[in-house]
Amino acid sequence: MSLASRDPILLTPGPLTTSLPTKAAMLRDWGSWDSKFNAVTADVRRRLTDIVSASDAHVCVPMQGSGTFAVEAAVNSIVPRDGHVLVLINGAYGKRMAKLVGMMGRRVSTFETADDVPTTAEDVERLVAADASITHIGLVHCETSTGILNPLPAIAAVVKKHGKSLIVDAMSSFGALPIDARTTPTSLALDLYDQWTYMEKTTQWRFTPPTHVVVALQAALEQYEKEGGQPARYARYARNCEVLVKGMAEMGFRPFLDPAIQAPIIVTFHAPADTRYTFREFYDRVRDKGFILYPGKLTQMETFRVGCIGAIGPDEMRHAVNAVRDTLAEMGIRQVAPAAVARAAA
Amino acid sequence: MSLASRDPILLTPGPLTTSLPTKAAMLRDWGSWDSKFNAVTADVRRRLTDIVSASDAHVCVPMQGSGTFAVEAAVNSIVPRDGHVLVLINGAYGKRMAKLVGMMGRRVSTFETADDVPTTAEDVERLVAADASITHIGLVHCETSTGILNPLPAIAAVVKKHGKSLIVDAMSSFGALPIDARTTPTSLALDLYDQWTYMEKTTQWRFTPPTHVVVALQAALEQYEKEGGQPARYARYARNCEVLVKGMAEMGFRPFLDPAIQAPIIVTFHAPADTRYTFREFYDRVRDKGFILYPGKLTQMETFRVGCIGAIGPDEMRHAVNAVRDTLAEMGIRQVAPAAVARAAA
Repeated sequence: MSLASRDPILLTPGPLTTSLPTKAAMLRDWGSWDSKFNAVTADVRRRLTDIVSASDAHVCVPMQGSGTFAVEAAVNSIVPRDGHVLVLINGAYGKRMAKLVGMMGRRVSTFETADDVPTTAEDVERLVAADASITHIGLVHCETSTGILNPLPAIAAVVKKHGKSLIVDAMSSFGALPIDARTTPTSLALDLYDQWTYMEKTTQWRFTPPTHVVVALQAALEQYEKEGGQPARYARYARNCEVLVKGMAEMGFRPFLDPAIQAPIIVTFHAPADTRYTFREFYDRVRDKGFILYPGKLTQMETFRVGCIGAIGPDEMRHAVNAVRDTLAEMGIRQVAPAAVARAAA
Repeated sequence: MSLASRDPILLTPGPLTTSLPTKAAMLRDWGSWDSKFNAVTADVRRRLTDIVSASDAHVCVPMQGSGTFAVEAAVNSIVPRDGHVLVLINGAYGKRMAKLVGMMGRRVSTFETADDVPTTAEDVERLVAADASITHIGLVHCETSTGILNPLPAIAAVVKKHGKSLIVDAMSSFGALPIDARTTPTSLALDLYDQWTYMEKTTQWRFTPPTHVVVALQAALEQYEKEGGQPARYARYARNCEVLVKGMAEMGFRPFLDPAIQAPIIVTFHAPADTRYTFREFYDRVRDKGFILYPGKLTQMETFRVGCIGAIGPDEMRHAVNAVRDTLAEMGIRQVAPAAVARAAA
């Protein structure tokens, strides 16, 4: 394979760089009704619940589609028609969850903090105590709009204390950050009653499953366990994030978030202050060097995002930092930090 | 690759046997925000509309998930809250369409014929003339519950004459049977306004796309065009069906449907009358020879189904027939046709 045809490394919130064994699992055809495929489904469901220590009290119901499909399915299946969902928002995915709850005809309330301010357990305590009609709390664990981490265990404890139900969007954090489903009061976000009862009865999916994707997921889970599970995955991502932030800091790039609330999933950086900077050219030049960055999602200020997740390690993160450095030189960008910070550093 | 690890041939309504180039397209990672992936999406959308001569008046809006997701999305996007959908039913997928229309709060009427009786244009003419409140007609083109073909062009003409809209589930027939979108009054079943406007504006998918699957679809479409498009695909499937039905008839197997209404997609056969027959053992033994059959879906009588579609040709169909013959011998099944037919043949 020539250099030109090698895939760029995806430094994004997803889709991500996957390992060759994961992709190679898609090279076979499976009958969706066949017992051999049903065994794959059962194996995947068991491994996924094991990852969050959920096997006793929870079930895993796989659902094809993007993450938003799963969130909508969870709200649709778990929240009764007369339910009332409090959605905790500090980014685009929280906003989207609130929007879809309303579209499905359920009552929705929102609590919104700034993009760089996590929701706290105290916030939830106060909000739930003030409105007895709230039945469910919706939370995005790692909000990849910025990369901010919301304190799931503390919020789950408050929700449990009040006897409410918790719907967690753990799209980017699942398997990487520690999650213990035993601390949540009812179901995992992916609990869909019909899919579950059908699977229990028949071992099959209700509707046509994405067979190639399911076997690829099984291959990915095998590699995950071999790597050492969640602690090892977290350690690798944390190291990726550290190498990235440190390397970018050498050039003057500052993360948008305080390190205390930064998940090692995706990092939002302030764009260079230099007038020669445009994201489009910056993106294209870094991509031509083999790395895919991600645009910022903040309306108030110009940012860009760099992911730390997928089948990549500290070496790839260092290569990416070097590609950014070369790109700055090519574009003639000297001023990365804003003027005030640049002066203070001088 | 040993014989044991070779994939069985999938003689089912789907997922199907796919070509190696189609699967191999999944061996690369793509950034969903990247212009190279956006070009793949645009290419796939254009090719799909071209197949049904729809490029001028229609748009293609891809939607991740199984076929049922696309049907639900179409009803959700196309039918207004106060719309009234007449669903034409002669099998499980028509029933499912009616069910989901009702679940989404739209008014639904049904017209149901027996599993082996197609809906006619005359039926639709009468029903639409009798109830002016009907806004949309829902039709399953090839109902794979049995393999029956419904007369889409004639029904589409009646719907157009009355100024109504048509929602077609062409899940198994698209690209194989001739479909001309220019005869339908409004949109293709996959028209989803939001996904469409977003794609037009950004060239991207609204939510995370199934990148590996989209590039595999592009590879499949390239092969489809190279093979000769819909006429060639139809000819191959028709030949597959012919070889299958003829070979099965040699053993006494009778198709459930009259040949005039049998689509060359999947064939429903009456199960052997012999008391030694059980589908489970029959299925397992044929599978061990390399072919995956499909269970019947009729409640009134025992049947099984054999698909004719996917990356397979007449050779595979003949091999499958031979495997069925060997299986009958192993199971000691001599009486395939029901007693009356067997006597007449003797």
